[in-house]
Amino acid sequence: MSPLRSWFSIPRGSHFSLANIPFGVISTASSKAPRVAVAIGDHALDLEIFAANNGFSALSTIQPHQAVFSQPTLNAFAALGRPVHSVVRKYIQSVFAENTPYPEVLKTNSSLQKQALFPLSQVQTHLPFKIGDYTDFYAGLNHAYNVGVLFRGPTNALQPNYKHLPVGYHGRASSVVVSGTPIRRPNGQILENPTAEKKVPTFSACRKLDIELELGAFICKANRMGEPVPISEAEESLFGVVLMNDWSARDIQAWEYVPLGPFNAKNFGTTISPWIVLADALGPFKTKGLENDSEILPYLKEKDDKSFYDIRLQVDLKTASGNLTTISKTSSRNLLWSFPQMLTHHSITGCPMQVGDLLGSGTISGLEPSERGSLLEQNENGKTSIKLSCGEERKFLENGDEICITGVCGSDEENLVGFGDCTGKIEPALTFLR
Amino acid sequence: MSPLRSWFSIPRGSHFSLANIPFGVISTASSKAPRVAVAIGDHALDLEIFAANNGFSALSTIQPHQAVFSQPTLNAFAALGRPVHSVVRKYIQSVFAENTPYPEVLKTNSSLQKQALFPLSQVQTHLPFKIGDYTDFYAGLNHAYNVGVLFRGPTNALQPNYKHLPVGYHGRASSVVVSGTPIRRPNGQILENPTAEKKVPTFSACRKLDIELELGAFICKANRMGEPVPISEAEESLFGVVLMNDWSARDIQAWEYVPLGPFNAKNFGTTISPWIVLADALGPFKTKGLENDSEILPYLKEKDDKSFYDIRLQVDLKTASGNLTTISKTSSRNLLWSFPQMLTHHSITGCPMQVGDLLGSGTISGLEPSERGSLLEQNENGKTSIKLSCGEERKFLENGDEICITGVCGSDEENLVGFGDCTGKIEPALTFLR
Repeated sequence: MSPLRSWFSIPRGSHFSLANIPFGVISTASSKAPRVAVAIGDHALDLEIFAANNGFSALSTIQPHQAVFSQPTLNAFAALGRPVHSVVRKYIQSVFAENTPYPEVLKTNSSLQKQALFPLSQVQTHLPFKIGDYTDFYAGLNHAYNVGVLFRGPTNALQPNYKHLPVGYHGRASSVVVSGTPIRRPNGQILENPTAEKKVPTFSACRKLDIELELGAFICKANRMGEPVPISEAEESLFGVVLMNDWSARDIQAWEYVPLGPFNAKNFGTTISPWIVLADALGPFKTKGLENDSEILPYLKEKDDKSFYDIRLQVDLKTASGNLTTISKTSSRNLLWSFPQMLTHHSITGCPMQVGDLLGSGTISGLEPSERGSLLEQNENGKTSIKLSCGEERKFLENGDEICITGVCGSDEENLVGFGDCTGKIEPALTFLR
Repeated sequence: MSPLRSWFSIPRGSHFSLANIPFGVISTASSKAPRVAVAIGDHALDLEIFAANNGFSALSTIQPHQAVFSQPTLNAFAALGRPVHSVVRKYIQSVFAENTPYPEVLKTNSSLQKQALFPLSQVQTHLPFKIGDYTDFYAGLNHAYNVGVLFRGPTNALQPNYKHLPVGYHGRASSVVVSGTPIRRPNGQILENPTAEKKVPTFSACRKLDIELELGAFICKANRMGEPVPISEAEESLFGVVLMNDWSARDIQAWEYVPLGPFNAKNFGTTISPWIVLADALGPFKTKGLENDSEILPYLKEKDDKSFYDIRLQVDLKTASGNLTTISKTSSRNLLWSFPQMLTHHSITGCPMQVGDLLGSGTISGLEPSERGSLLEQNENGKTSIKLSCGEERKFLENGDEICITGVCGSDEENLVGFGDCTGKIEPALTFLR
């Protein structure tokens, strides 16, 4: 890929290079109504203002649909379909290109630059979609194996179904929040002494508050109830990808999860990064996922097995006193199932998917201890501790801890495709409950 | 309760007596736009037309909010809060009362009667809420016990957590449909030989298609993320109740459900009755639920333990050839946890509930075989068969079978409070998939 250069100043190393053009929803001090924007370098381009000032004058495709940029979510834009997303992204790239064929649109239009370009430090990002349903999968083979070993031993670590279908469960859509939203430590029922014969729970603030390093993918195409999405068409339904932290209360989970799966342990917050990297932007970074040594059923077989992404993921923990430690580094290729496979399996029953539905990949862990995407795996369910660079130790999260997930693709520092930050800080639990 | 009499002709035995006044969303041949209505006898009163013709002239409370009746869902009306629902219901009762204080509104206004009252046979009902999240609980103790015996034997039938918290899981909101919507038999992965050492699934149409007899409750009050709904305030968040059939693919479920719970087995359709019976209308039929012999934590303790309903439930199976057999009869009091307890437990972590969220009770079964709310229990997981009155037998549902759930409260045939029908007919699975 030849490097893309811009007349606009994009800092070297920016996640939001000209090769990216991720979409989000912003508001600003002068205009509180959330609307659609793209991130470029350390700025946001307000597409409502851009559209209102003839920014799309050279792109007839989008002109009848410009109202989508004034919406408070990306649902309407996403529903236009991937060919439209592709054209809009390429057009914005061409507007910012060094030798833009449309200099009058923005390059030489300093008035519109002033109106429509905001420093990212001055914009508020919002949840980019109205999410209908949120489904979380469990496609991180190494994570599933590590957790299985902790709870069932190495022989039965993976359940017999694991390599035949993307295991998943319906999550809680209402508690998906945008990066930066504080996460309150949940209260709930925990079993203090799991080995006691009589099992009586205690009411408590969660003592095993954990993270889950995941990717999320948003759906941009609905299917009718009763009509599955074939694997050959699944890519067309994927709008783009975000980083995701599926906060988890391990002690609440251990007590509640039989026989119907995690519930309260997962419904108090799921954080996503604000800028959605379009499937097109991730195209050059497609790769194979983990090898599946089981023969899978035809409906899950992809023509091309390169439908995973090689995103370099990193998890940092910042303590209340400001100390920062990188606690995990891995690649998003550590998945057994791709998003198209998840989507096709999800809908094989005829389940209707809607624009704005969110699919989570499941926790992503590499093979090495330094690559694990949850604290549960890192501390072997509380047996060991993580050493922080300030000398403190952590088994699980403490109040005031802030988790920041980042992810980036590419090696050319001037053409990175990244996601920005996916952060959340832990607030103390409410104490008046019992 | 003294009987309520109306000037309007309400057939004896109607589920929609003057004591009821359930809310729903309708359209008609002459006006295709869905809007809010109430059911009364065998008619629907179109509240959009009623409001537009000064129907609410004597009710100043609702006048600033009349636009809610022109909405295609009940979300906006529900969000006005229970005191408003209460006042509107009572007002409509008084308009229809034999000695109405407002005869000019409808009793002597034959023009408005003609405009706003439609025979139920001529209205199309629609999904009454835009459902944000749908959560299904497992509060039917007898069902949980029966199923537990089938899969784990009588000693471990109930998990240790069962009597301490309302076990539940997040369901699929997008496949909740209104009564009458056909249900297509799902395809998926099943394990033909579960006892084989090597577990290899087959792709197949579901062979164990089942029903689940449930109640559903809609939420009418949001809580902020991080702020649980205390048990003392939970009743105020409950708009009303519907009948529910949570269609289940038992063979798909058996293979997929470890370790994260049911997923595809439950996401292809959940049917609800179209008319929501307000919590107020059910007030006179409140009763105790099943006794819990475990000490429950304070946050789940209700001041009054009569927050269950004594609704006489019935499940009928109609074959493709038209034969009708009643396959189950029970009471909705067969629950261990009430809707307020479910809601409070759901939100104890700070999980935000939104107006239009749906809570399912879990399958309701009595103690007797004739009172079981799922076929799985009735046929002991395929060991026995149900005899139909036409001489046919059923283990699970066949194509063309129609299930109709009904429910009604009260003994005075002129003041019944019921739900109408909750029906769905099974269509054959798609055959081109593999």
